[in-house]
Amino acid sequence: MTTDLTFAPATIHDIDTLVTMLADDELGQQREDTRRPLNQSYIDNFRAIEQDPNNELIIVKQHSQVVGMLQLTFIPYLTHTGSWRCLIEGVRIHKDFRGKGLGTQFFEWAINRAQQRGCSIVQLTSDKKRPDAIRFYNRLGFTASHEGFKLNL
Amino acid sequence: MTTDLTFAPATIHDIDTLVTMLADDELGQQREDTRRPLNQSYIDNFRAIEQDPNNELIIVKQHSQVVGMLQLTFIPYLTHTGSWRCLIEGVRIHKDFRGKGLGTQFFEWAINRAQQRGCSIVQLTSDKKRPDAIRFYNRLGFTASHEGFKLNL
Repeated sequence: MTTDLTFAPATIHDIDTLVTMLADDELGQQREDTRRPLNQSYIDNFRAIEQDPNNELIIVKQHSQVVGMLQLTFIPYLTHTGSWRCLIEGVRIHKDFRGKGLGTQFFEWAINRAQQRGCSIVQLTSDKKRPDAIRFYNRLGFTASHEGFKLNL
Repeated sequence: MTTDLTFAPATIHDIDTLVTMLADDELGQQREDTRRPLNQSYIDNFRAIEQDPNNELIIVKQHSQVVGMLQLTFIPYLTHTGSWRCLIEGVRIHKDFRGKGLGTQFFEWAINRAQQRGCSIVQLTSDKKRPDAIRFYNRLGFTASHEGFKLNL
């Protein structure tokens, strides 16, 4: 277990660190833009997330260092007798902090947040090329009941 | 190809028909509440969807009959160099209108709508117990690159 963790929405001051973390990953390095100054799309989308009451970009810090990030989206549906779901995307744990239970603690926090927001389902998709992540979600009690389809436009 | 189709956001006047359509399905009948008057959660969530600029509950009508429904959620992310995605959920085609290309036409409309909204990825999950749906999404060009995990709270 990792101690001294704080969980809170990211602020614009964290964005540089967050983009670095997204890019520091085998799949991420192919799709992020690590140039500085930051690509304006990162800034624009940070602001769009921040202004949307149904989106929360959450970071976990140990002392003042950002050690993980994920995004929660709360979505109202008619299905399942009018229920809300929480979608989790963009999960990253800093590579120096893996294998210490931090991911589990972060997900416990996120699942609790989804419950606070009245969600009855938490869902996410995980790339089939990330077997460690797939084992992690199975261990947390998630069921891979669905195929996760993507279409690039 | 099915002709004379119109695509538009659902209104509160459609909700009775929509709940009936959601329940008229092997998986749906286990999780919807078909009693009347409608469970208040349906009404509340319809209003939540309607008031959220990043959610659109779309219906397709032939003449004045509702023949299909789906929900679009537009989500801003930092990932993929600050991109927007469109999540599609709650897809139903009226059972009398299946096998006539209507689903394909509905998805062409939805993908076009996602492009209008500046999305670079369309994503959805499909229950592994719905093999016909999985074949349908493969035919449309979607790739089942991800596992779709769910956790009931």
